[in-house]
Amino acid sequence: MQFTLHHTDTHTAARAGTLRTDHGEIPTPIFMPVGTLGTVKGVHQHELRQDVGARIILGNTYHLYLRPGTEVLEAAGGLHQFMAWDGPILTDSGGYQVFSLAHRRKITEEGATFASHIDGSKHLFSPESSLGIQRSIGADIVMAFDECPPYPSERRYAENSMHLTHRWLERCVAFMDASAPLYGHSQALFPIVQGSSYDDLRRVSAEFIAGQDQPGNAIGGLSVGEPIEDMYRITALCCEILPASKPRYLMGVGTPANILECISRGVDMFDCVLPSRNARHGVLYTRQGIINIKNARWRTDYSVLDPAPAAAPTSRTHTRAYLHHLFRVNELLGPQIATLHNLAFYLGLVTEARERILDGSFGAWKDQILPDLERRL
Amino acid sequence: MQFTLHHTDTHTAARAGTLRTDHGEIPTPIFMPVGTLGTVKGVHQHELRQDVGARIILGNTYHLYLRPGTEVLEAAGGLHQFMAWDGPILTDSGGYQVFSLAHRRKITEEGATFASHIDGSKHLFSPESSLGIQRSIGADIVMAFDECPPYPSERRYAENSMHLTHRWLERCVAFMDASAPLYGHSQALFPIVQGSSYDDLRRVSAEFIAGQDQPGNAIGGLSVGEPIEDMYRITALCCEILPASKPRYLMGVGTPANILECISRGVDMFDCVLPSRNARHGVLYTRQGIINIKNARWRTDYSVLDPAPAAAPTSRTHTRAYLHHLFRVNELLGPQIATLHNLAFYLGLVTEARERILDGSFGAWKDQILPDLERRL
Ligand SMILES: [Zn+2]
Ligand SMILES: [Zn+2]
Repeated sequence: MQFTLHHTDTHTAARAGTLRTDHGEIPTPIFMPVGTLGTVKGVHQHELRQDVGARIILGNTYHLYLRPGTEVLEAAGGLHQFMAWDGPILTDSGGYQVFSLAHRRKITEEGATFASHIDGSKHLFSPESSLGIQRSIGADIVMAFDECPPYPSERRYAENSMHLTHRWLERCVAFMDASAPLYGHSQALFPIVQGSSYDDLRRVSAEFIAGQDQPGNAIGGLSVGEPIEDMYRITALCCEILPASKPRYLMGVGTPANILECISRGVDMFDCVLPSRNARHGVLYTRQGIINIKNARWRTDYSVLDPAPAAAPTSRTHTRAYLHHLFRVNELLGPQIATLHNLAFYLGLVTEARERILDGSFGAWKDQILPDLERRL
Repeated sequence: MQFTLHHTDTHTAARAGTLRTDHGEIPTPIFMPVGTLGTVKGVHQHELRQDVGARIILGNTYHLYLRPGTEVLEAAGGLHQFMAWDGPILTDSGGYQVFSLAHRRKITEEGATFASHIDGSKHLFSPESSLGIQRSIGADIVMAFDECPPYPSERRYAENSMHLTHRWLERCVAFMDASAPLYGHSQALFPIVQGSSYDDLRRVSAEFIAGQDQPGNAIGGLSVGEPIEDMYRITALCCEILPASKPRYLMGVGTPANILECISRGVDMFDCVLPSRNARHGVLYTRQGIINIKNARWRTDYSVLDPAPAAAPTSRTHTRAYLHHLFRVNELLGPQIATLHNLAFYLGLVTEARERILDGSFGAWKDQILPDLERRL
């Protein structure tokens, strides 16, 4: 994997780059649609490519390990083959889902034991097993196994957890060095900065992560309930320490405004369930503001969902009245259109951000569009 | 509307034709995907056109009348505009749904009163109101308001019902003559042969319907539970009486085998919820046989859903193992892929039937593939 930094904004810390993987190039900043179970919910793979403009998608190790399981994925030749997506894939480590979804979880030095939320079966995730599973999945970017402490966390807990994450990281690096990819394409490890909401811990962690000299770095443990100012401050703090020559991935963030603000603080990569989950509930992002399509005011609004050139073809075709009808009668096509719309909106936003960074207008553009992005129509 | 009959098979009564509407040409025999509420469930309109190969779709007057309602449809400029489908549309009369879905229904000479299955509100459908609603919807082909008697029906009931349907038809014809289309394109009325399972009533009804000299004719009241032999015999009997110069539409039929058998008896147009409803339950039609994708035997079957050239692009891309996984984890993309697959299979089947009729090989081809079509894999 190779990262080229083309330009850093002079007014903000925003950057435009290109990340090269064996499954293609990723322009940065980028947003990665979440494809938990080997599918971005409601979206065909060719639509992801053509209508959404996705350049990389995310898979969840915890979910894929439970279903379909590594045996099925390995026999298929990895997740790319299994789901017929030939673009880049990033997988998380499974740690976050163990702590948020699984039952009877217990953390030890070895790793985390848990019971499946599907059938109660008992499992262990460790740095080695998480990365072994991610080798079976075959993602282009694999994430280190970490503990994401809840918010708020006592300082003592956050500090111990951070050191555990660091010790686990050393085992992740050792496992990656001692093992090989299964499918002929390379896999890059991204370590994760932790440290909860404590600036000094975040500094220690960012220094430690930077020192591992891996192909990219991530910031975890944010967007877990902390005040927005904390998220922005800690993101900026971490970005200042993490090397400029490598991509920076802020995990699980966020709203369109969050993404622009964090791009301006030096983040290159994002993922979030928000655009797809909100779409399934009829909440649409547009450049004019946020639409709740179930609201009666859209019943006879025959303007298209979003006339913006960056909108998906389907958003420039279908009207608000039609989508309102589809949601009202609970038709499958409603969530399908809304998901395509929101993901294309996110990809359109980071694509324009990149152009603005390259032509020097990013900061002014961001300040100008932010109020509209957060407005409820 | 104009129908050109290109060829009638010498060994069977199968026909190849072209039906011209103001929204485009329809090669016959044709299968019409069902789009009850202004959407073919789970399928984008551009996929209908490009991946499925649909040339005409069906809308349900009863459902569209209740939601979104004629006011919303008229303000949109009709259903074509509302749903952004610029191909031909056929609407049923709403009568069948009144008898199968609505509550507290009562039939009088005037029409049928019923309570909505959505909110219990009271409504009247009559020949005039049904066609008035179909004017508001703006379908290219509109169906006469009829009564579809249940199976089995007493002869006396079937005969009275048939005569009521005939009297209603005369009011339908009068209403169409006295009213104009709302959106600038023409609408053709298809009357419907009834008469339950009684051959002599069917003959009387077919003669009466033929005598109305409308642009096309339909056979209703079949595929309602009668033995398959009755369906085939009555279809043949009606086709012999209905004029060869006009398209013949067999309503609500059926399996792939039913369709080929009825094509061979002289039917030109079909609609059925079977391919789309079965798809949502994981039942797929292929040239090799019927697949229940939820069956464990497909868990590690990495062959594509259907390698047939007539299959949808997505069916030639995705494997049985992948679709099995999607259904097992209850992902939206499962029904989406399965629906595309089944509808493309039906369209591929009638497309090949047409080619076979034109080159004289229809009968032999039908007899050869029928056993495979009904086999469970
Ligand atoms: Zn599409
Ligand atoms: Zn498609």
